[in-house]
Amino acid sequence: MRPVAIIGIGKTPFGAFPGRDLRSLATEAIGKALQDAHATPSQVEAFYLGNFAGPSFVGQNHLAPFVASGAGITGVPCTRFEAACASSGSAFFHAWSSVAAGIYDVVLAAGVEKMSSQPTPKVTGILASAGDICGEIRAGATFPALFAMIARRHMHVYGTTREHLASVAVKNHANGAKNPDAHLKKLITIEQALKGKPVADPLTLYDCSLISDGAAAVLLCPLERAAEFTSHAVRVLGIAQTSDRLALDEKEDITTFAAVAKAGEKAYRMAGVSAKDIQFAELHDCFTIAEIIASEDLGFCPKGEGGPYCLDGHTSLSGKRPLNTSGGLKSKGHPVGATGVAQLCDVALQIRGQAGERQLAHRELGLAQNLGGSGATCVVTVLGAAA
Amino acid sequence: MRPVAIIGIGKTPFGAFPGRDLRSLATEAIGKALQDAHATPSQVEAFYLGNFAGPSFVGQNHLAPFVASGAGITGVPCTRFEAACASSGSAFFHAWSSVAAGIYDVVLAAGVEKMSSQPTPKVTGILASAGDICGEIRAGATFPALFAMIARRHMHVYGTTREHLASVAVKNHANGAKNPDAHLKKLITIEQALKGKPVADPLTLYDCSLISDGAAAVLLCPLERAAEFTSHAVRVLGIAQTSDRLALDEKEDITTFAAVAKAGEKAYRMAGVSAKDIQFAELHDCFTIAEIIASEDLGFCPKGEGGPYCLDGHTSLSGKRPLNTSGGLKSKGHPVGATGVAQLCDVALQIRGQAGERQLAHRELGLAQNLGGSGATCVVTVLGAAA
Repeated sequence: MRPVAIIGIGKTPFGAFPGRDLRSLATEAIGKALQDAHATPSQVEAFYLGNFAGPSFVGQNHLAPFVASGAGITGVPCTRFEAACASSGSAFFHAWSSVAAGIYDVVLAAGVEKMSSQPTPKVTGILASAGDICGEIRAGATFPALFAMIARRHMHVYGTTREHLASVAVKNHANGAKNPDAHLKKLITIEQALKGKPVADPLTLYDCSLISDGAAAVLLCPLERAAEFTSHAVRVLGIAQTSDRLALDEKEDITTFAAVAKAGEKAYRMAGVSAKDIQFAELHDCFTIAEIIASEDLGFCPKGEGGPYCLDGHTSLSGKRPLNTSGGLKSKGHPVGATGVAQLCDVALQIRGQAGERQLAHRELGLAQNLGGSGATCVVTVLGAAA
Repeated sequence: MRPVAIIGIGKTPFGAFPGRDLRSLATEAIGKALQDAHATPSQVEAFYLGNFAGPSFVGQNHLAPFVASGAGITGVPCTRFEAACASSGSAFFHAWSSVAAGIYDVVLAAGVEKMSSQPTPKVTGILASAGDICGEIRAGATFPALFAMIARRHMHVYGTTREHLASVAVKNHANGAKNPDAHLKKLITIEQALKGKPVADPLTLYDCSLISDGAAAVLLCPLERAAEFTSHAVRVLGIAQTSDRLALDEKEDITTFAAVAKAGEKAYRMAGVSAKDIQFAELHDCFTIAEIIASEDLGFCPKGEGGPYCLDGHTSLSGKRPLNTSGGLKSKGHPVGATGVAQLCDVALQIRGQAGERQLAHRELGLAQNLGGSGATCVVTVLGAAA
């Protein structure tokens, strides 16, 4: 396997954009990524698109050639990947694999979702199709309900509190307020978060990520060719995609995600690093409890201590290991299929020193963790400076 | 890139099975493929699942880990591929890539679709999501309508007749009648086909493939390890996935599929063969005209002569180059997401000499062609005996 670099990044703002369709969002992000790498559509040898539920949200299947042709890319393999909220993490994993293995040199990975055209109850129903529809979903669960059960169990076993959950929301809102492309730019207090409208006990509105439209794209090539395109290359040091059962009731312990722990271990091993070396990360905070559990499963803090770890400020912009400097899914927004690649763009932005008001001083080694459903797919990627 | 072998094949019968769900179909095919290769689920290093519209047909997304865990496969990368009717062709292409590039040794590619639970008009609507919903589909077209326009144009330019189309149906019904796993086992005459109920002029019911439930799976490994598993290994000699625009009105010529011609050329080049060397093939006869055009685009006969080529008997079981010995999508059935891998199983069955009543004498070199939508994705694979 040869070293691989991200040579171009591009994102749309995230938000609710009534006037924008799925294809225009995707082609905007692709255009930006190509421009960032000084590349043209004709240089793209294969296209990997993550999209969760375009067929349900906007009625369009067969999305990879549909999006690609809109961006001027035809003829080459164009493939759609669906892995719930880890759809574009999975697309990126396969794009990386193909370059690392020497199949292609220049490939494009992107993600897109257009969610805001559907009313919220419909969105909740579509999102539920990422759970086990024959079991937990048929029994009446939605994703907020599943993560509420996870949060409740974590509280019971480890003493995690509502304040711990709220501290994740407060931090991510503070970061998002500094991100010009974030869906929400709104500072909140612990008190506000605690008094949020109940969604699924113990989760309130402030514990839940957003329903967003948006797209993100990255261009990849072998590290040895990166200088042909850019002086801002970011290296993929380690990556892994893993899987687990869908249904919560089939898992031995719902306070941990086996797929996350395993993906982390594999990605660390490939990168030759350990958790302590990771300076910052974008974690999949679809719900506040998910960031807490991810910070534990990836070894950033001991098991069960993810809540205090955030409340005590270790994960804020000025903390020892800032998490979700972009604002995370909570504040940046969560256009499901775009999230995995968007996380990589945000980690790359930090490593390139282009994160503006959110820029970290120590940003040589970052991580992105993209979770599908309630943990049945996970993709963890470790990125570092190319030079 | 190292040589890759198919070491296990497994299929469910195709048909309308009210009592079977999507997961049970997929796990049956996977179980058979593993058993055929004397392999266990724990040996599978990655899982590639083709599925077109499980979310729309049965409400389930995140299908790869859902199916995999049902088959006893967890932890490893489990990924769903959606490329309309070429979904499992694309899954197989990526599975092959990963073994050829040395990323994994033992990988499983499968395809599944459960369609019969929806009424026919709903199925037609779901299938239409593989076309350009902002253009041709919004204008009122369905897939039968799109292929009717293609047929009409082929008739206008090349003199193709209704009899030519009907001859494809008659041949494929005859082959399907000999296939114990086919959805339809019903001999028809040219006269019957011509008098079929009109669907979209000039296509009648006999020109259209079936709405089926079913699944198929293949196990792959490096050729050098094939003997550890089986004495029936089949070698992947050449393969390519290509793409084109979705909408018919964006294509210069609708009597040919650019993605098919290009995939054929690339697969031939990789295999070091030309069209004349291919002894038999499974072609994507979603409509009779599609088989005719594929036989031209792949170079089996001159452009425009696909109709007479079939009517004159060259593609029948006793002809010079038998096409769709399985019965094809027309008679074997077309559970959309399963079709690509099912075609590979059927080509492998011939090469292994296990095709029963349909067995060909000359079966050293076969081809499978899997088409997505009205030609926006194509996967062509050339298979040969491993020894």
